[in-house]
Amino acid sequence: MKSSPSVRGWLLLVLLLHWPLSAQADAPLPSWHQGAARAALVQFVESVTREGDPQFVAPAQRIAVFDNDGTLWSEQPAYFQVLFAFDEIRRMAPEHPEWKATQPFKAVLENDQKALAAAGMDGLLKIIGVTHTGVSTEAFIGHARAWLAKARHPTHQRPYTEMIYQPMHELLDYLRSQGFKVYIVSGGDTAFMRAFADEVYGVPPEQVIGSSFVTEYQLVDGVPALLRTARIAHNDDGPGKPESIDAIIGRRPILAFGNSDGDLQMLQWTAAGKGPRFMGLVHHTDAKREWAYDRQSQVGRLDKALDEARRQQWTIVDMAADWARVFPFEPASTPQSQ
Amino acid sequence: MKSSPSVRGWLLLVLLLHWPLSAQADAPLPSWHQGAARAALVQFVESVTREGDPQFVAPAQRIAVFDNDGTLWSEQPAYFQVLFAFDEIRRMAPEHPEWKATQPFKAVLENDQKALAAAGMDGLLKIIGVTHTGVSTEAFIGHARAWLAKARHPTHQRPYTEMIYQPMHELLDYLRSQGFKVYIVSGGDTAFMRAFADEVYGVPPEQVIGSSFVTEYQLVDGVPALLRTARIAHNDDGPGKPESIDAIIGRRPILAFGNSDGDLQMLQWTAAGKGPRFMGLVHHTDAKREWAYDRQSQVGRLDKALDEARRQQWTIVDMAADWARVFPFEPASTPQSQ
Repeated sequence: MKSSPSVRGWLLLVLLLHWPLSAQADAPLPSWHQGAARAALVQFVESVTREGDPQFVAPAQRIAVFDNDGTLWSEQPAYFQVLFAFDEIRRMAPEHPEWKATQPFKAVLENDQKALAAAGMDGLLKIIGVTHTGVSTEAFIGHARAWLAKARHPTHQRPYTEMIYQPMHELLDYLRSQGFKVYIVSGGDTAFMRAFADEVYGVPPEQVIGSSFVTEYQLVDGVPALLRTARIAHNDDGPGKPESIDAIIGRRPILAFGNSDGDLQMLQWTAAGKGPRFMGLVHHTDAKREWAYDRQSQVGRLDKALDEARRQQWTIVDMAADWARVFPFEPASTPQSQ
Repeated sequence: MKSSPSVRGWLLLVLLLHWPLSAQADAPLPSWHQGAARAALVQFVESVTREGDPQFVAPAQRIAVFDNDGTLWSEQPAYFQVLFAFDEIRRMAPEHPEWKATQPFKAVLENDQKALAAAGMDGLLKIIGVTHTGVSTEAFIGHARAWLAKARHPTHQRPYTEMIYQPMHELLDYLRSQGFKVYIVSGGDTAFMRAFADEVYGVPPEQVIGSSFVTEYQLVDGVPALLRTARIAHNDDGPGKPESIDAIIGRRPILAFGNSDGDLQMLQWTAAGKGPRFMGLVHHTDAKREWAYDRQSQVGRLDKALDEARRQQWTIVDMAADWARVFPFEPASTPQSQ
């Protein structure tokens, strides 16, 4: 700011700074078909950002929260973080010869689905425990990044970071271009999500809220480190979501998006605020391009929240009908019958 | 962004947008005397913000963390939050006739310092418990705001929100003008600090990190509320500070400021990062304008952190010598011998 650029320089700068915003504002959400969901989103954003509008909301209050698994990226055939944990068991196995004879690790190493199912939630928590704790936060994020760089999704053969929903990515961009502060509030491990959220979604670490383990500050050879212990600090699911929003953000969101019953309380908390609110659900209806599941699914069950959304007239995104494309690597489809 | 303002309009806008920044850059920190502390701050900020400088730090990484009690506002004759709790006991007493005969509440109601001291930390925790929990976050913040609006500091007879350090306030402004994101990381209750931090310091709720109680999401007559329970979720003191920084911010600060041994681990954690770092301590040396205390103080003891600061050559702010004024309501002093 010390030198004084010429008038021409300033004009160029002004144009460069505002061009993308104007272009975006002309046609937001290109991967959304024209329809009720897209219209509701655009109408909401325009009304809360238009000065003088009775619905206007000051920029500082434009807090938007998004679930991650099933809302911003896929969660099938299992939560990606669980698939990461299984791969970590395989990677770490040479240092743990005892795992060959110990469940649930044996089941992972032998890809024994039946034994894994029998181990249940307790078994899964053991697997998460040994792969997610006992190391520093930095080391853990390093492991997650190494995995994301080389692992491929079992059915799509793509990096997991490409299994994100293009229409939701555009929604994050659209909201940010209109002064919203976008948070992820998700059941996944906070540090796991921070390993990619900034690069993939443009959501910086301080706007990623998830489940967490208690960390302990320690001096290791005189160097401070934060050790991830096996004690769970917070389960960011169901009521845990409004609880963490209140604890960490300290403001009530004006927009919330989820896809499962684990998002119900976050949506209710958002809806109960005064003034304009937007509550959205991604409904997985697209067995052809993604997956179709709701009330009966083990992963991302959508049952009570679907009833509540219909009762309260929240926006339900019908993936098959509302999205011109699902993943960024796919071509756009033509609109289906509306 | 839809209309196209004239070239003149743009130029005016550009000037308006950049004028305050330029003015600030010309003379930051006016309430600091010229001296080593001010010079170290300005040199650090200029080097990390100058593009091309080997010390340059990208804006997203410019995280600055500040303790609150004794660093941004006074903490004498006792932490202001404790004085709030005592006043709340008096306010709530009519609903609790049993307190007249029950310690430690009786001691507060009778202003019995000896009995209060005898009740010790257990007594204080009981007082904090009944005044800080059992209500919703919103209700608690309402109580804190009502108190801040009418309470007066016992020796200065000023609102507590005026007992802030003008030089530190200028430092927050200076850092923000240079692209820093400023957080409070303090032992005080998060919601208590959020009651005033935005208005008084310009620090929004999502950048206030403190100690916290477990909250529970509940439907009260069908309306969602977050109830503050009596269970402590986090003690944001000592090692708890780098732990919460890692959990909530997820980035290591490049600048940290404290004033007591409770800030030692936050300063060590900051110092241990790669690249340029600034670690600062406010040393209370000014019995005339504020208070003078360090190694022997019950409140804000500064002992180990003072030794460490001297060993590591962190910046120690000598309040008496470095600050031209302490509180915003005071006139500036002339420089003392440097």
